[in-house]
Amino acid sequence: MKVVIVGAGAGGMTAASRIRALKPEWDVKVFEATGFASHAPCGIPYSIEYGFPGDELMYYRPEVFIKERGIDLRLHAKVTEVKDGSIVVDENGVKNEYEWDKLLIATGASPKVPPIEGVDLENIYTVDLPPDAEILKSALAEAKNVVIAGAGYVGLEMAEAVSSLGKKVTVVEMAEHPLPNFDSEIGEILKKDMEQKVDLRLNEKIEAFEGRDSVERVITDRGEYRADLVILALGVKPNVELAEQIGVELGETGAIRVNQKMETSVENVYAAGDVAETRHLITGKPAWIPLAPAGNKMGYVAGVNMSGGNIEFPGVVGTQITKFYDLQIAKTGLSEKEAIKEGFEVKSAFITANTKVHYYPGAKKTYLKVVKDAETNRILGAQIAGYEMVAMRVNVFAVAIQAGLTTKDVFFSDLAYAPPFTPIWDPVIVAARVLKF
Amino acid sequence: MKVVIVGAGAGGMTAASRIRALKPEWDVKVFEATGFASHAPCGIPYSIEYGFPGDELMYYRPEVFIKERGIDLRLHAKVTEVKDGSIVVDENGVKNEYEWDKLLIATGASPKVPPIEGVDLENIYTVDLPPDAEILKSALAEAKNVVIAGAGYVGLEMAEAVSSLGKKVTVVEMAEHPLPNFDSEIGEILKKDMEQKVDLRLNEKIEAFEGRDSVERVITDRGEYRADLVILALGVKPNVELAEQIGVELGETGAIRVNQKMETSVENVYAAGDVAETRHLITGKPAWIPLAPAGNKMGYVAGVNMSGGNIEFPGVVGTQITKFYDLQIAKTGLSEKEAIKEGFEVKSAFITANTKVHYYPGAKKTYLKVVKDAETNRILGAQIAGYEMVAMRVNVFAVAIQAGLTTKDVFFSDLAYAPPFTPIWDPVIVAARVLKF
Repeated sequence: MKVVIVGAGAGGMTAASRIRALKPEWDVKVFEATGFASHAPCGIPYSIEYGFPGDELMYYRPEVFIKERGIDLRLHAKVTEVKDGSIVVDENGVKNEYEWDKLLIATGASPKVPPIEGVDLENIYTVDLPPDAEILKSALAEAKNVVIAGAGYVGLEMAEAVSSLGKKVTVVEMAEHPLPNFDSEIGEILKKDMEQKVDLRLNEKIEAFEGRDSVERVITDRGEYRADLVILALGVKPNVELAEQIGVELGETGAIRVNQKMETSVENVYAAGDVAETRHLITGKPAWIPLAPAGNKMGYVAGVNMSGGNIEFPGVVGTQITKFYDLQIAKTGLSEKEAIKEGFEVKSAFITANTKVHYYPGAKKTYLKVVKDAETNRILGAQIAGYEMVAMRVNVFAVAIQAGLTTKDVFFSDLAYAPPFTPIWDPVIVAARVLKF
Repeated sequence: MKVVIVGAGAGGMTAASRIRALKPEWDVKVFEATGFASHAPCGIPYSIEYGFPGDELMYYRPEVFIKERGIDLRLHAKVTEVKDGSIVVDENGVKNEYEWDKLLIATGASPKVPPIEGVDLENIYTVDLPPDAEILKSALAEAKNVVIAGAGYVGLEMAEAVSSLGKKVTVVEMAEHPLPNFDSEIGEILKKDMEQKVDLRLNEKIEAFEGRDSVERVITDRGEYRADLVILALGVKPNVELAEQIGVELGETGAIRVNQKMETSVENVYAAGDVAETRHLITGKPAWIPLAPAGNKMGYVAGVNMSGGNIEFPGVVGTQITKFYDLQIAKTGLSEKEAIKEGFEVKSAFITANTKVHYYPGAKKTYLKVVKDAETNRILGAQIAGYEMVAMRVNVFAVAIQAGLTTKDVFFSDLAYAPPFTPIWDPVIVAARVLKF
């Protein structure tokens, strides 16, 4: 049996490893356009901030897959065409064709580059694949004034990385607070912290980039900023072009529609990772939330099913976390505005708390916004900011939402307590009590 | 309506506050033998280690309850007798009698003092109520060689506190590793860390304390240790004496039997906090796990029901956490040995992991032992040790166990990931995968 996997990111390599483990006799080929496998683009900002080499941004070295796992992994091999039963690959300028019985499309997502005037000037970058870490490091070495377009996750993390290098950073965001998919209570806390470190321009739209060859100025609807370097962090889009060549259906989100076995609309063609849709466990609807943990698991599920197994990916609740310097920010489930948009009648609570009991040294502030379904009391979402233990509390809510727990269930959850760790009434439990049950 | 609450610990004061909030016109009296209300004995080791005053070991000052919440809180008021409809109280040497229509017994638990020869010598202490913080601080100022009997939570925390003051500490424990209610994999990790800081004597039983007036030596079945001060940390027993005076039934654990409304076997008599049993959510059986968070919630439930409401306390999964210097140790659900004792056929996994993705600076080690029901794949328990994020992972399992999740559910749980926080395959998810589903 011939398996072809397009894309050696986390999803593709997880699938490849699974198939080799379950069907050692099968021929498993993976084609990857870059020189990286199981790459971790989420580490690019930290490679810039801490200076470790960009080639550490792989979970496993290619040799591990090739030698230890027996996967025929081809790097610098760009798939240019997908046909029914075969693919065409550009390998060092030579076009080769390979047959497949089962195909996995794991082509990921790429940064959006909007058609803004001057966007093709030099020194305007996106943050996409691990090689960008070294490219950005070199370019940043020469830069003094950096403009970051967008204050979502990537914009935020790049704002930390670049400002930590001593550059003057201006962040331009159209929304009224950074991380626009959060509710404003948490967004405002982040805003205050960002304003200490960077020039944050909210409610502002970039209209043009100007400069001779290289970018020199960013023009917005409210001002003009000097820039020797611009980073576009305006969201991502799924790389569906190859899938479309063989008629794979896309979902409403624009990503590949799959069922819970990661099967596409075309027989023997699977999709996994950032290119594929998944199911939102709260709404039950298809969702496109391209994040690494789900991408890996989709790869695992695709690999099992492609090997003749039978496993379903239940879906996600959209848990996400990031930080800006010391401020940690996380979200799971739906924000209040997202929940309302989905038609829920909601109640929400916003609380401020300390992370430890009053007498224990080193307590820090944390802020929780929690949303429930007003009718059933089911927890719909939680957003948390704070200076420690944010991952802990968002994960409690992530599991609670996955399990369909109500405010009462969360109030009675048996969370760990000891003075060095938490207050006796954990803020999670206080939020559940405030929301009533 | 006259409400009497015996004991102003966390459970008693939570109940009192709830009743006053729901029934402001009722007369709510709380009688407390010490000068502390809503006290936090779990902070005693940290008061010794960090030197903050012992009277900070209250969540709220008595004035908050008396003035802001209108509770008739009587401190230094020891209840000496409980009768049908009244109690007798020793207030500064004067015996007063008070009537009750509804009674809450919230008398807590006290350290066990085993009948070892010489246990009445001077300078042998227990760690019980907040006033003990100052008593121990004074006594420790004079001590050089301290023996701690028992390596459960209190023994462990006192071993850290006392050794941090520069004293020579010997810990004597009968079991083969510290924290005997953990499985040995985690116990052995803790053992290694403890041996760096204290003289840890395992599999050893104390047979006598010797000395003229004050303790000078501790005699065990395997040796003899110099001691100018001994701390007994040999577990606790529920303070059920007053409850027994009016015929309140005890459970098999020796604590007060209650239903999920916190009602005892005697009409209009409730019990809450460390003196009461609760229900274990895995076994469905009564359990006695006297810890503060459940104690508070039992007080909340008792308060609501005593006020004419109707709420049930679902039970606990026995989540607990502590630390020894930098090593954090936590447990939820059943250990493997406990699960086997309860009749489960189990499978377990023990994994070692890093707390962060490999390229991010500052990753630390963590160790997870996870137990599942071999038949249903339901998670039965998790024990975690490590140098960060232990509370996060134990709480994920606590909620998972509460919700009855299986290894598959946990594998697919949508936990937060970003390089500064966790590896992409969180150790929780790796453990679930190793356990199979």
